[in-house]
Amino acid sequence: MRTIDINCDMGESFGVYRLGEDEAVVPFITSANIACGLHAGDPFVMQATVRLAVKHGIRIGAHPGYPDLQGFGRREMRLAPEEAEALVLYQVAALQGFARAEGQEITHVKPHGALYNQSAKDAVLAAAIARAVRRFSREVILVGLAGSLLIEAGLEVGLSVSREAFPDRTYEPDGNLRPRSAPGAVISDPQKAAANGLRLAREGIEFMKDGKKETYPVDTLCVHGDTPGAVEIARTLRRSLESAGFTLHGKNA
Amino acid sequence: MRTIDINCDMGESFGVYRLGEDEAVVPFITSANIACGLHAGDPFVMQATVRLAVKHGIRIGAHPGYPDLQGFGRREMRLAPEEAEALVLYQVAALQGFARAEGQEITHVKPHGALYNQSAKDAVLAAAIARAVRRFSREVILVGLAGSLLIEAGLEVGLSVSREAFPDRTYEPDGNLRPRSAPGAVISDPQKAAANGLRLAREGIEFMKDGKKETYPVDTLCVHGDTPGAVEIARTLRRSLESAGFTLHGKNA
Amino acid sequence: MRTIDINCDMGESFGVYRLGEDEAVVPFITSANIACGLHAGDPFVMQATVRLAVKHGIRIGAHPGYPDLQGFGRREMRLAPEEAEALVLYQVAALQGFARAEGQEITHVKPHGALYNQSAKDAVLAAAIARAVRRFSREVILVGLAGSLLIEAGLEVGLSVSREAFPDRTYEPDGNLRPRSAPGAVISDPQKAAANGLRLAREGIEFMKDGKKETYPVDTLCVHGDTPGAVEIARTLRRSLESAGFTLHGKNA
Amino acid sequence: MRTIDINCDMGESFGVYRLGEDEAVVPFITSANIACGLHAGDPFVMQATVRLAVKHGIRIGAHPGYPDLQGFGRREMRLAPEEAEALVLYQVAALQGFARAEGQEITHVKPHGALYNQSAKDAVLAAAIARAVRRFSREVILVGLAGSLLIEAGLEVGLSVSREAFPDRTYEPDGNLRPRSAPGAVISDPQKAAANGLRLAREGIEFMKDGKKETYPVDTLCVHGDTPGAVEIARTLRRSLESAGFTLHGKNA
Repeated sequence: MRTIDINCDMGESFGVYRLGEDEAVVPFITSANIACGLHAGDPFVMQATVRLAVKHGIRIGAHPGYPDLQGFGRREMRLAPEEAEALVLYQVAALQGFARAEGQEITHVKPHGALYNQSAKDAVLAAAIARAVRRFSREVILVGLAGSLLIEAGLEVGLSVSREAFPDRTYEPDGNLRPRSAPGAVISDPQKAAANGLRLAREGIEFMKDGKKETYPVDTLCVHGDTPGAVEIARTLRRSLESAGFTLHGKNA
Repeated sequence: MRTIDINCDMGESFGVYRLGEDEAVVPFITSANIACGLHAGDPFVMQATVRLAVKHGIRIGAHPGYPDLQGFGRREMRLAPEEAEALVLYQVAALQGFARAEGQEITHVKPHGALYNQSAKDAVLAAAIARAVRRFSREVILVGLAGSLLIEAGLEVGLSVSREAFPDRTYEPDGNLRPRSAPGAVISDPQKAAANGLRLAREGIEFMKDGKKETYPVDTLCVHGDTPGAVEIARTLRRSLESAGFTLHGKNA
Repeated sequence: MRTIDINCDMGESFGVYRLGEDEAVVPFITSANIACGLHAGDPFVMQATVRLAVKHGIRIGAHPGYPDLQGFGRREMRLAPEEAEALVLYQVAALQGFARAEGQEITHVKPHGALYNQSAKDAVLAAAIARAVRRFSREVILVGLAGSLLIEAGLEVGLSVSREAFPDRTYEPDGNLRPRSAPGAVISDPQKAAANGLRLAREGIEFMKDGKKETYPVDTLCVHGDTPGAVEIARTLRRSLESAGFTLHGKNA
Repeated sequence: MRTIDINCDMGESFGVYRLGEDEAVVPFITSANIACGLHAGDPFVMQATVRLAVKHGIRIGAHPGYPDLQGFGRREMRLAPEEAEALVLYQVAALQGFARAEGQEITHVKPHGALYNQSAKDAVLAAAIARAVRRFSREVILVGLAGSLLIEAGLEVGLSVSREAFPDRTYEPDGNLRPRSAPGAVISDPQKAAANGLRLAREGIEFMKDGKKETYPVDTLCVHGDTPGAVEIARTLRRSLESAGFTLHGKNA
């Protein structure tokens, strides 16, 4: 019997600024990716979000991003690989502090935004991120886009990986996510997103790589806390997956 | 036989900006307090500084400060205690990541600048810092001004504490450090600073508390990496202490 | 015939983070105090907010704050007066750039949050702010709490001042605002706030100063964009003032 | 008779961090490009640097950069053009505040670091910067790499431009600066740099554009305050230019 994980980026508020519907989404997901204070989140928000995840018995993961709060970590930057490595280790360790304070351990690391997208295609950056995670712990799972160089980099250093797909996003033929700004990039209808997610969980994702069509299995499905209708998407997706016989990963599955 | 520790704030560079003479001072000290990226330091600097400390076999401690790079953490801020608590936990955990990546553990936490000074006198802030450190680990030592409320707060939550004094600084009659901006606040003559340090190590520090003269033992002496002549002070101080029969703490003692 | 101004803090969004109901409040006010990128706002938000103010023909003012985005400029800081002076001049000038680019000029400066509150009581800080504004332009009005030291500092350097009161806030007997966190500090009923505002406009504000009861005239009433029901308060307040025969200041009055 | 300008990036200190030898270089240059608080500089440093430039009678220019203090504005970022435009206008206006407070006006704008390099080759970014400067003032000169798209963008919107070359840097055949990290990228011998500068002033700079060799005149020569030996380079360069009969631009020429 196949299992599947549903993850969501969380803890993206900052100071007085509120973002996302963490409280409403959390009952339907099995893994939280928690912002670590640089592209979003602050220590107080991180602490509260870890506690929310613990309360719901879901997995706690770090969601490191670029040091660009103004751009929410979505603007491409060019860091030296050793800078990127230290940057990721810093953020992952900071989040671990809040997890440990609640008697928990981080289970996974998923880069955010431009760091995620660039490391899907840039082998040097992907290797830097993988090294950071591996130096942090050999037990932590690296989450990356299914079929991406980040997944390869994680395997290369001996990490477990989790291959991710996006039920509420449209893909380019090369397997990259269509940019949010492009028309049709975001699927906001819960039924469509759920159907999309169910298909991804069953069949994996197929795209062209080096001129050949390849299929990549999918271990985790991402729902976006800031997509309009995110809660409804998460609820519908979870119900569809359970109805189809999938076991949901995570402690509350 | 009495032992004593010599500590120094380190890793205070940031990006292209260089500060302190870490390489030159490190042979003479036994504990490094490493900035954690908010008032000074960045992930890459933290990593390099941890490695420097490991190379010299000295103790690695976190040196958390206010999120005020422009003021170098020296400007007073008023945070809610729960904000201060999360802020300290965040920074300590981030540094632990770099220590662990080198196979080490943080041994101590010493607040920086205004956070140090305010927590010496403000019981609520002191308690928040002590809670943060205690939640991080019961094995970590809390370093604070000898005779301060921070030391009391650490003991209150069951932490080991290290009572600090400053050979190169002048004290007010109430036991607080004279502000750097005041005349005579900084002692830059190495012989005088060393003699001062030796006396502090032997006799502890004496000042008025609640109208009574009290003497407080001293466990660790701080040398400042950014005081002019810091290296010479550190060298002279260490030699004086060893000549006087003190055992220097730390793995390289 | 008496005139009165209604002001509102605006442009407090930052990057992806949205705050306030600027579009909804702007039709009812006569002066916008626009955040300048340090405690809130970013260059893109500043530009959009200036354009919104221009579209509605209201006065454009700078709303400088402490460099503390995480604390939204509401946490007390202790800056050297010359630091505070440069900090205010920086922010005011930056906003002027966006005003000029739309063919406008800044009409006023109102410090934000902790900078506002501290400068009401701290003569040295108040003088630093007044100097900054005066150096920027002798034509710009300094807005401060009616009866505060900031108003005195502005007059001292030859600036025009605007004495402010808060219809939706409760005052302490000494004329300071009751802290937001205290019970009853915020008045969210629009009728009550409007009645309060009308009384303040007519009678000024009365409180104890140096042991004597004093009355201070009020030139401008602040409505808060982030108070629940802010729009309704602004609408009701404006209607009350107009019904009572007040002429609203500003170009759209 | 030909005139030439010597410019230097200045005001790159931040808080307690010192960078550059502004005091020592300023007697030899005719234009200061002053950092505006985002990639380097802070309000207090900006104010002091403007005063230094005024004291020496040289031209005051804004040196806007990316909001990346940790990377000193040298790391590539990808901003939307409207973000870049607002970012530049913000910084230029902020510096103008300090110039005006000294009775001066900004004379020029030169982007910093990665913003400079990217806008040399990216027409969309170049146009955004040119628009920002043009909206600020039609009297301000846009400084860019000789032969770059930034120069074209400035001319396009009707700005005066100043075409820059680097006596202490090596060029790639396509006219771009060799990255600092590449071997031989920086010329630290004062005689060589001065000879290089004299040749650039006389002959302009020649490189391949669209497969054709082109020569671009040079209006301003940059000396770097943070290159080792910067002061000696500036001194030697100025003497060489004056000996060769060039009139130095700027009020102190």
